[in-house]
Formats: sequence, C-alpha cells, structure tokens
Amino acid sequence: MTDTTATACVLVIGNEVLSGRTQDANINYIASELTKLGIRLAECRVIPDVESEIVDAVNHCRAKYSYVFTTGGIGSTHDDITAASVAKAFGLEFGMNPEAERILLDHYGDKANDARMRMAMTPVGAELIDNPVSKAPGFRVENVYVMAGVPVIARAMFDNVKGTLAGGKLLVVKTVSTIGISEGMIAVELGDVQKAHADVDIGSYPFLKMGKFGTNLVVRGETDALVEAACADLRQLIEDAGGEPIDGETEGDELK
Amino acid sequence: MTDTTATACVLVIGNEVLSGRTQDANINYIASELTKLGIRLAECRVIPDVESEIVDAVNHCRAKYSYVFTTGGIGSTHDDITAASVAKAFGLEFGMNPEAERILLDHYGDKANDARMRMAMTPVGAELIDNPVSKAPGFRVENVYVMAGVPVIARAMFDNVKGTLAGGKLLVVKTVSTIGISEGMIAVELGDVQKAHADVDIGSYPFLKMGKFGTNLVVRGETDALVEAACADLRQLIEDAGGEPIDGETEGDELK
Repeated sequence: MTDTTATACVLVIGNEVLSGRTQDANINYIASELTKLGIRLAECRVIPDVESEIVDAVNHCRAKYSYVFTTGGIGSTHDDITAASVAKAFGLEFGMNPEAERILLDHYGDKANDARMRMAMTPVGAELIDNPVSKAPGFRVENVYVMAGVPVIARAMFDNVKGTLAGGKLLVVKTVSTIGISEGMIAVELGDVQKAHADVDIGSYPFLKMGKFGTNLVVRGETDALVEAACADLRQLIEDAGGEPIDGETEGDELK
Repeated sequence: MTDTTATACVLVIGNEVLSGRTQDANINYIASELTKLGIRLAECRVIPDVESEIVDAVNHCRAKYSYVFTTGGIGSTHDDITAASVAKAFGLEFGMNPEAERILLDHYGDKANDARMRMAMTPVGAELIDNPVSKAPGFRVENVYVMAGVPVIARAMFDNVKGTLAGGKLLVVKTVSTIGISEGMIAVELGDVQKAHADVDIGSYPFLKMGKFGTNLVVRGETDALVEAACADLRQLIEDAGGEPIDGETEGDELK
C-alpha cells in the first residue's frame, strides 16, 4: 500500500511492565485512537526506567516517526526518571516549569513537598499536557508527548492532545467475513487477491464460532473504490471455495 | 543493582496489534514467566509485518540480549512473513522442514494444501518448538525463539521451551506495604533508602483502597540479607511518616 500517512511510535517506560507485575493497557488505547485519526502506529517499545535506554529510544524514534508518545515514569518517586531523561535526549535543561509549579501548588496546598513538586519539572520550554485526574501534567517537546503510565491518566492526556495531531489521512476500512471456511483453505487465493490489489492492505483474522472456523478479511485503502474492488474479489474467492460471503465483521473467538 | 542475570527481549510481530484491532496478551505472560525463571526481560517491541523491520529488530536484539522471543506472523496467509524474515536475518536458506512437514501432513491428511504446508517452512537447521494446540510448530535458531501470536499457542510454546533456558538467577523479592500513606508523602525518603541500598532495586506501586491511598514497596535483590536490610529501613520510613508497615503485598486498585 502506498504509505503517505503520518506515523507514530509508543514508548512504554516501566520496569513493572517488563517484570510482568503490570499489564500494559495504554498501547491498545493509543493504537485504536491513532487508527481512527488516520495516523499509522508503526512501532511500540517497552523499555526499562534506565536513563541511557530512554535517551536512546526517544532519539531514535523521534527522528524516525512523525509522533512519539511515552507513557510512564513521571511520578514523584526515585524511579520516575522519564522527564529528566527526555530533557537529556533533547539536550535541554531540566528545571521547574512555572505553570506546572502553580498547578501543583494550587492542588497540594500545604501538602506540597519536594517529591511532589518534582512532578512540576520539565525540559525547559516544554508545553504542558493537562492532567484532569491527578493534576501533575504531562508535556510535549517538539514531536514527543510525555504522558503518565496510569491508564486513566494516560487516556485523558492523549485525548487532550489528539485534536492537535496533524497529517492523518483517514483510511477506508471494510470487512468481508465468512463462516465454515478456514483461513488455511483460502490462503493461497487470498495472497493472489492481495497481489492483484497492491494498493490496499488485506488482513485475515481467523476465528472460531460455535465449533466452526471462519475468518474476517479486513481491507484498508485510501479510497472507497480501491477497497470495494478488493472486497468484490474476496466475495468471489469465498464463493469459489464453497462459502458464503458476509459483508461486515463476524464476531467470534479470534485465533490471532 | 549489580546485573549479572541473563536478559531477554520480546518481539511482537503484527499489524493487528499496531492498528489497535488486537490487544497483545503475550508480553505479560512471557514477562511473568521470565521473572520467575530469574531472567530479566529488558525490552519489548511491537513491530509491523514488514520484512526489513523484522530483520532489523531480530538482528539488533539477538546481539544485545541472551534470548529473543517473537510472537506472531507464522500462520498460513500472505501477511505471515515472520519465519522467512528470521531466515533472512540469520542469512539462512528458508525451506521445507522435514519434521514439520511430517507433523502437518499427519495432521491435515487430505486437507493439506500449499498454504497450510507453508507453515512447515523454517530457516534450514532450525529446531522445532512443539505446538500442542494446532500442530503448526514454532522454531528456534540460536537464541531466537519464533512462536505463534495466538495467546493459547504462544503460551504452550513458551512453556515447552522455558525448561531449556539457562542463565537465570532467581532474585529474592519482598514487599512492604502501607495504607493511609500516599507515595508522594514518602518519595524523598524512599529515594534515600534506595541510595543507601544500591545493591537492591526498590519499586513503589501506589494504590487506592476504600478511599485511602497506599503503596506497595517491592524490593528485589540477590540475597535475603540484602533485601531484608532494605525492608527494615522501609518499615522504619513508614513508621516515621506516621503509618503502619505491613509485611507483604496489599491488594488495591493500582495507580501505576
């Protein structure tokens, strides 16, 4: 498929995800939202709370992709080193952000302390991302968006910035499905349809439903005409295999 | 913390995870199992079904880490290119694996076709990983373990190889928790305890329980004595803050 869309990368920063203690819940949310915006999520990485790893990943990914979203490591404890590491990646000073300082002083009042106020420190010049849940803000430096790891906060922060993301090109997505025909019975022909329609992207998502195998064939492309042409061939393929094509997604227990 | 343990990386290969269509369920399982084995999961990546991306990631990660586990992209359809890409990464020929061919011919009988038999192709010389669920095997080349993406199959494959993984050093893990003391109230002192016990790794996992904030302080280290010394200081820290230390994990709604 011709690829002219904006691209993105998610960096999940946290030893707790790598140790298996915490199940990441942010990749799937951000992935779904980016897809709706027509921005292609091209890569995700889960990396530890280690400065050199964060600096390397941020610098690699911000050069390679249109947008980088980080989650995790912006709390108040000693292992929260994301903000300082992002400053280092950009070669920026790391200091108290006056606007964030005001927000946290307002929020904590006489419970403000050094650890909590550390959450008001950003790379100098960063633009804040509002945190409606627990106040301590995220921030943006150029194309890097630094957000919290707590899913409810990460989602709120992402929702606050998504309206500002540019370059998305919404794709047309249609699904042709069938029950009683397993993926392996049509895989060769499916490859032929993909070759004949190289300007769209066809994915096959097999499922099991009431003891029968079936598959959802999802077609993504830039125009309705391109997508519909591929769908027509997929319906024919299913009929040729002795099955019945269904327009739209069939729910089942996914096998992928 | 001194780091002498074996390391690992998980590569999740699949456009469906990047588009948000599928929520990855393999990282968390493999992470938890590796932790039990004393092998440190150092990085995970989610990458698309694109040959150059797979080749680059496999070659980067197999040089950097003791073990690489891939999931996804070994099915029968045109977008399943993991096996061929791993062959390319190693500079190996990609061909029919006689043992895998026999397994699939036995399994499919007269329903065997070109697409299904493609699942018997591996880099030449690869060692098979048994698939008790749907037969099509995974495989290993050197330190790279190529497994299915379907969670129930990925887990079965991982369980089949985990007994063969070497180099793990089991860590001692203890948790001291408290309710009524929020992380932000003790973060500075917590940083001091971490500095005083640089040979262990202390993580703080705040939670909310019946309207009260609390935190689980998890200490990991190589010996019971090292871990217990840090735990003693953490109990004192909690008492100094006016709280009550609890040995072991307190269940709550995690905020991280």
